[in-house]
Amino acid sequence: MGNAIQNEDYLFKKVYDHVLHRIERNEWKEHKKLPSVRQLASEMNIHRLTVLKAYQLLKQHDKVYVKDKVGYFVQSNVTKNLEYLDNPIVSAYVQKNHLSEIHQSPVSYNFSQALIDPNLLPNQYFSSYVKKVFDLYPKVLATYSTVQGDLELRESLTRYFINQYKTHLNPDNLLITSGSQQAIHLIAQTFIKSGDAVLFERPSYSAAIDIFRAQGAQIVTVDIHPNGYDLEQVERYLKQYKPRLFYLIPTFHNPTGYTVSAGQRKKLVELAEQYRCLLIEDDASHDIYFDHAPPPPIYTYDTAGTVIYIRSFCKYISPGLRIATVICQSSLMKSLITVKSLTDNGSPLLNQKIFLHYFSSLRMQQHLEKLRIALQIRKEIMEEELGVTDWKWTSPKGGLNLWVQLPDNLPTELLLTKSIEQSISFVPGQVCDPLKQLSSWIRLSFSYANEKQLSEGVKRFVAVAQSLL
Amino acid sequence: MGNAIQNEDYLFKKVYDHVLHRIERNEWKEHKKLPSVRQLASEMNIHRLTVLKAYQLLKQHDKVYVKDKVGYFVQSNVTKNLEYLDNPIVSAYVQKNHLSEIHQSPVSYNFSQALIDPNLLPNQYFSSYVKKVFDLYPKVLATYSTVQGDLELRESLTRYFINQYKTHLNPDNLLITSGSQQAIHLIAQTFIKSGDAVLFERPSYSAAIDIFRAQGAQIVTVDIHPNGYDLEQVERYLKQYKPRLFYLIPTFHNPTGYTVSAGQRKKLVELAEQYRCLLIEDDASHDIYFDHAPPPPIYTYDTAGTVIYIRSFCKYISPGLRIATVICQSSLMKSLITVKSLTDNGSPLLNQKIFLHYFSSLRMQQHLEKLRIALQIRKEIMEEELGVTDWKWTSPKGGLNLWVQLPDNLPTELLLTKSIEQSISFVPGQVCDPLKQLSSWIRLSFSYANEKQLSEGVKRFVAVAQSLL
Repeated sequence: MGNAIQNEDYLFKKVYDHVLHRIERNEWKEHKKLPSVRQLASEMNIHRLTVLKAYQLLKQHDKVYVKDKVGYFVQSNVTKNLEYLDNPIVSAYVQKNHLSEIHQSPVSYNFSQALIDPNLLPNQYFSSYVKKVFDLYPKVLATYSTVQGDLELRESLTRYFINQYKTHLNPDNLLITSGSQQAIHLIAQTFIKSGDAVLFERPSYSAAIDIFRAQGAQIVTVDIHPNGYDLEQVERYLKQYKPRLFYLIPTFHNPTGYTVSAGQRKKLVELAEQYRCLLIEDDASHDIYFDHAPPPPIYTYDTAGTVIYIRSFCKYISPGLRIATVICQSSLMKSLITVKSLTDNGSPLLNQKIFLHYFSSLRMQQHLEKLRIALQIRKEIMEEELGVTDWKWTSPKGGLNLWVQLPDNLPTELLLTKSIEQSISFVPGQVCDPLKQLSSWIRLSFSYANEKQLSEGVKRFVAVAQSLL
Repeated sequence: MGNAIQNEDYLFKKVYDHVLHRIERNEWKEHKKLPSVRQLASEMNIHRLTVLKAYQLLKQHDKVYVKDKVGYFVQSNVTKNLEYLDNPIVSAYVQKNHLSEIHQSPVSYNFSQALIDPNLLPNQYFSSYVKKVFDLYPKVLATYSTVQGDLELRESLTRYFINQYKTHLNPDNLLITSGSQQAIHLIAQTFIKSGDAVLFERPSYSAAIDIFRAQGAQIVTVDIHPNGYDLEQVERYLKQYKPRLFYLIPTFHNPTGYTVSAGQRKKLVELAEQYRCLLIEDDASHDIYFDHAPPPPIYTYDTAGTVIYIRSFCKYISPGLRIATVICQSSLMKSLITVKSLTDNGSPLLNQKIFLHYFSSLRMQQHLEKLRIALQIRKEIMEEELGVTDWKWTSPKGGLNLWVQLPDNLPTELLLTKSIEQSISFVPGQVCDPLKQLSSWIRLSFSYANEKQLSEGVKRFVAVAQSLL
């Protein structure tokens, strides 16, 4: 499955939009000559055939015309019918969040949300203990946090990481963000310019794909297998594409649940250093393991500052608080803080203080242990119900999802439509694939629906699927 | 004062960086020919002399070399000494937040923070009533908000705006953001591409200048006067520069405190419609008036969807919650929601619920009335202490700042250094000026220091200034 073909459709659309926006916004006026195919290809760092294809479609759509042997020219009156306000021209190349669109249909059997069922979180304890937080910080609602994040929280997290991983770290290496999604977005804004190559696992986290796309990145993919990657392929791509960064989820990977081995982690850091590629390690499910704790994060193998580590606790502690942390070396941190300051001037202090006190409590440890068992049970229920089919998946050792391969002849798009009619949701593999293929795979989350819903919902789902075969 | 000169230094640096980054990142390899001056100038939409100046400096810095009559070429070995990891190459043009740098010095007499003294906020009431919020929404910490923002909050704000301004509005026109800074950032990301012209008041909010700069905007400035703008100048610039948007703070403007008249508001909307320029109305101090309420927001005059309205309540209700709202027509809203979903996937639900209940309480109205009086007293103390000087300012009818003109021969940079030595901070006018001039003006905030600090601190400050004359 898959290889490093860059998404041609995407590049093609990028050229098409690049030209059309300039025409529509009257930057390129009628009868202006377009850049030559060679020139634009070199400027945008893409293949000439892609530019040619875009120019030809623009001609077909009557936006430009050709003079033989001279070149392409802007057609007159292109902007005439443009209703400016109804067609806002957005700045980024793909302003789309695929996953959030799926989540818009309310369903009874929700297997699309990789979120923890709110009933598994210690809500009552939270309510009573938040009052203590207000007693401790009576002016917490009247105060801004610093941009980098509350120092007390950063100190507490630093102690936690040092204790867990025996790593060198100080609070200046930590940035508090509003969820890991903001962290990914800050990193993309800080380090990626339009046209930059970035390496992605295939499949990967859909929102991260959308974020890097929106920043204009060209995504090169590496397949992820149950134990990691083909490291020779990784090295080849590092050499060939010189990616700025490699966005990866090495622990209980989303959507597959796979975990990269300790050996590969070490080797990856060496490769990244050698080829000067940042590793962006997104670690949102580290504590959600079923039997054994996973290997330490990749950043703990890093001595040269090649890894930017994103650790999120939101999902399994308190989704409503939106707290995550980014760890990296100081020269990278400086840029991230500036971008964070422009983005929202710091995450709310209240949320950081609430999180701080819960995170460092004994209660959290107890909560986690119970949560792991509850999630393992839900996973087993889902797997049991799926056992009647011949579908394939690798049973995950942690995380919130099953990554399931359906029979080739099952039409996934129709399956989604029919499932939503039956009040069942799931995530089609295509959405998790930077190349928009993997159409016989789906992601089923077992963390949001309760045991009864899982049992009933998966039965119904299997029935829907079988009716389509 | 001022005119529409674009900041040449900035453009020049942009070209310089554009070329240098490509060389350093090895996209343009050694001995590659650079684009011709004419070509790059057209591509970046700037003057050829600016490009030439940048090329010449690159030559002087030994990054490129010239072959007579052929062009500029990449020097060999430019990247040799580049310590990649210590010099992360950031994506945006100016990754700087000027104001947040000034705030880094802790001082006893803080006149640089345009924030409300935490002691003026109803902290005790807050602490006790937050408990009720947890009783009402026991799972609030376990739940994500929708991307657009909690519906109950949007409904409540919609009722408030309809009631206040008799305007047509429904909750779909509202987006909840994490503070107005995030709102500005979302708008810049959504509507601005590198090279786009945007109109700004001069002076303006420093962070907004930095945000639009970071997005690559070319800023054109219009002077703001105590009653508004020279509308003929505004129209001329709309015609000449075709700005994508006009970022403005028409009510108790930051930093000047000026308020644009109702007559000008109406006329501005007409101009914006005519020239298809979005008006971004940032309204952070609307309720902080001293005698009479200000004219209704510009967006209430808008019938064609030309205005995007940012209303922040954080500052005077609960800075720690970071809640603001954006109001606009649905086609623009759609893009903003997508960008918000990529940015952080929605603001924390807890903060929205706490804000909702306080905002709609009688207590808030009482708080506001007391706050207005307290701030007016602080303003009067500051003005009284400044009365011994011949410095000039227009006494503001609302807001948090005095905008003061110092004698021409007072060296402001030295004044800042000396003041900070005396534990006094203020904001130099330069920071608020997109053209980085206005060096004889300063912003003094009277909202953060208490009465005693104001009286003592301003006395000290005047003494420091007079010692430099």
